[in-house]
Amino acid sequence: MKIDIDKTSMIPVYEQIANSLRDMMYGGSLQDGDRLDSEQKMCRNLSVSRGTVRKAIDILLKEGMVKKIHGKGTFVSNPNVEYSLNDQLMSFAESLDNQHLSYTTQVIQQELRPANAKIADMLKIPVGSQYLYLERLRSVADDKLMLIENRINITLCPGIEKVNFNNISLFNKIEELADRKISFARSTYEALTIGTERGKILELPPSTPALKMQQAVYLSEKEPVEYGSVWLKGNKYFLTTTLQRR
Amino acid sequence: MKIDIDKTSMIPVYEQIANSLRDMMYGGSLQDGDRLDSEQKMCRNLSVSRGTVRKAIDILLKEGMVKKIHGKGTFVSNPNVEYSLNDQLMSFAESLDNQHLSYTTQVIQQELRPANAKIADMLKIPVGSQYLYLERLRSVADDKLMLIENRINITLCPGIEKVNFNNISLFNKIEELADRKISFARSTYEALTIGTERGKILELPPSTPALKMQQAVYLSEKEPVEYGSVWLKGNKYFLTTTLQRR
Repeated sequence: MKIDIDKTSMIPVYEQIANSLRDMMYGGSLQDGDRLDSEQKMCRNLSVSRGTVRKAIDILLKEGMVKKIHGKGTFVSNPNVEYSLNDQLMSFAESLDNQHLSYTTQVIQQELRPANAKIADMLKIPVGSQYLYLERLRSVADDKLMLIENRINITLCPGIEKVNFNNISLFNKIEELADRKISFARSTYEALTIGTERGKILELPPSTPALKMQQAVYLSEKEPVEYGSVWLKGNKYFLTTTLQRR
Repeated sequence: MKIDIDKTSMIPVYEQIANSLRDMMYGGSLQDGDRLDSEQKMCRNLSVSRGTVRKAIDILLKEGMVKKIHGKGTFVSNPNVEYSLNDQLMSFAESLDNQHLSYTTQVIQQELRPANAKIADMLKIPVGSQYLYLERLRSVADDKLMLIENRINITLCPGIEKVNFNNISLFNKIEELADRKISFARSTYEALTIGTERGKILELPPSTPALKMQQAVYLSEKEPVEYGSVWLKGNKYFLTTTLQRR
């Protein structure tokens, strides 16, 4: 483990240490499951205080880049959940089921709201009419992994506002109440930082990288039933594809 | 524009302003093309110095979240490049061509390197044998958008190490020298921060969110011809899919 620090730099030494370790993980010289040098060894090698090394490790712990295992040390902890973009349309819940990963879903907000212009347009409902806003936090193995924000067209699945969504699949419930199958979804993915508000819920610092999915779900081309965003904690979630050439 | 700051907080005020503006962009109350309040107005409303507001704006400028237009103000600048994951396999260059976006590609490194265990395994070549390492920077409209790192199996496309890759499509060149079509690619996508080393090349601070694609490209199931990573600047690049249900 070769860490470069410059004590004359404007950047605090603990940040330099964290940046240097992060670079090694991204560059592949530190890989999944590798153990970091002990705090004592880093202090000695870099001639810095124990507090400085701890602050550096804390940054990486908060980002989910490393994990502490009591009595064993600090280990590189890499992405461990996949979501295939080649299969048929699956909800994240169904995808986790398919990977035999157990998860819990906690409802944070569930309320009827009046549609603004953007949401009215996406759900093809009149401006000011009510839709169901649903905000949920999903954890896998106690790791707060995704924040799910759904806006649901209640005229297409009446009664959905009264469902208890703790640990229930939204897609299944929509199909049950609409008494029809979901047809397709259009999605976009981008990398952002999690920001203050969502970071608070996921217990991550605002600057943590996140994958944001924005998705519109349709019963048919003219019947959008749900419009939502999913914020996936970075370094924990993989999208996968296999694409053929020509 | 309603910015919350807490002058008693440990977080510097300029960071709080940047976080608050970022949250508004992510939350949708500030959208593509919206103009931010002028620096004077923000100073007045928040009772902070001009320098503090400038530092906040600088953070967002560096992240590519906003753009300054001389004499007009500072504007929210959102993702503007798409990459479809439903089409046939396309290189990023081909995808940009399809969107009629002009770009430049600059070679940063191009050299033969001996394969370590991981690369040997991915390219199905002996450990220690040579492969072509190619590092390129691609800009769209003067925006440094992606950093491309390729590892190429030179036995499958002899002579590729001598090609001048400034503004040439790698996929086309591989197919020309291998005298065969590429068959398919397996890819994964995840959100990370850009890190120090790559941030320097893309002129971004280490904490900038980025989408990392890791891709293995095959001539046939047993002939991997390229293994690479593409680092896409966050907030600038969209992946898109349309998936059918059942």
